[in-house]
Amino acid sequence: MRLTQHTDYALRMLIHAALRAPELTTVGAVSEDFKLSLTHLNKVAQTLAETGYLHTVRGRSGGLRLALPAEKIRLGQIVLATEPDFQIAPCMSPTNAECPIYRPCVLREALDQAAQAFVRELDRWTLSDLVRHRSALLTAIGRK
Amino acid sequence: MRLTQHTDYALRMLIHAALRAPELTTVGAVSEDFKLSLTHLNKVAQTLAETGYLHTVRGRSGGLRLALPAEKIRLGQIVLATEPDFQIAPCMSPTNAECPIYRPCVLREALDQAAQAFVRELDRWTLSDLVRHRSALLTAIGRK
Repeated sequence: MRLTQHTDYALRMLIHAALRAPELTTVGAVSEDFKLSLTHLNKVAQTLAETGYLHTVRGRSGGLRLALPAEKIRLGQIVLATEPDFQIAPCMSPTNAECPIYRPCVLREALDQAAQAFVRELDRWTLSDLVRHRSALLTAIGRK
Repeated sequence: MRLTQHTDYALRMLIHAALRAPELTTVGAVSEDFKLSLTHLNKVAQTLAETGYLHTVRGRSGGLRLALPAEKIRLGQIVLATEPDFQIAPCMSPTNAECPIYRPCVLREALDQAAQAFVRELDRWTLSDLVRHRSALLTAIGRK
């Protein structure tokens, strides 16, 4: 069971933005520091701007900054915003009722409850928790 | 976030075995009733036999039956037995410490806790819960 690469990159981009605050970060800096694809990170930045997590500052000295304080950003909500869906099994898609036992089956309910438990646990963590070792993290990305 | 096809098929094979009990089921019958690949189901049956969920009866009238009562089979444990790993993000692999912030990063801990919450919730459900609409399920697979 895995999160998509999109979510993985989004979490790292938000960590980078939280570490760099109050300075701006850029997609290029995240790419360089984490050795991640610029093309993919551009899409991630777009998702995070559209969903209200990052604010884009335009211009020559522009970049990205958190649109909310780090302690207000809950991990479960990030994952819900960046995963394309939470269909733990194919039968959880509303447009996929191909399984012959679709109607009487109880498995969907169990998987849905488990997915909710996953998000609920992540919502106990904020972006602020992720950067609590700020000094060691800044050293690790060579920005100290 | 998705379970592997292997786990999805394993859950359906166990549902089939629980529905057919006390008669035996076969990989062929599961394939036919759920329209799933025989090749893949053979591998799933092997995993479920090796992990103590299915018992294989050899011979001409052989087949598969649950190795435990359905009410003793917890969904979280099935998923742990059939998923190749529970690495929600690449950094959760013990052999993958490529991320520059691997050591001071707290994200792994949050994801690990969330994965545990997912399994804990599934463990509240048994295979017996999944087949509580036995009559409707048997009708749906044309075995009534």
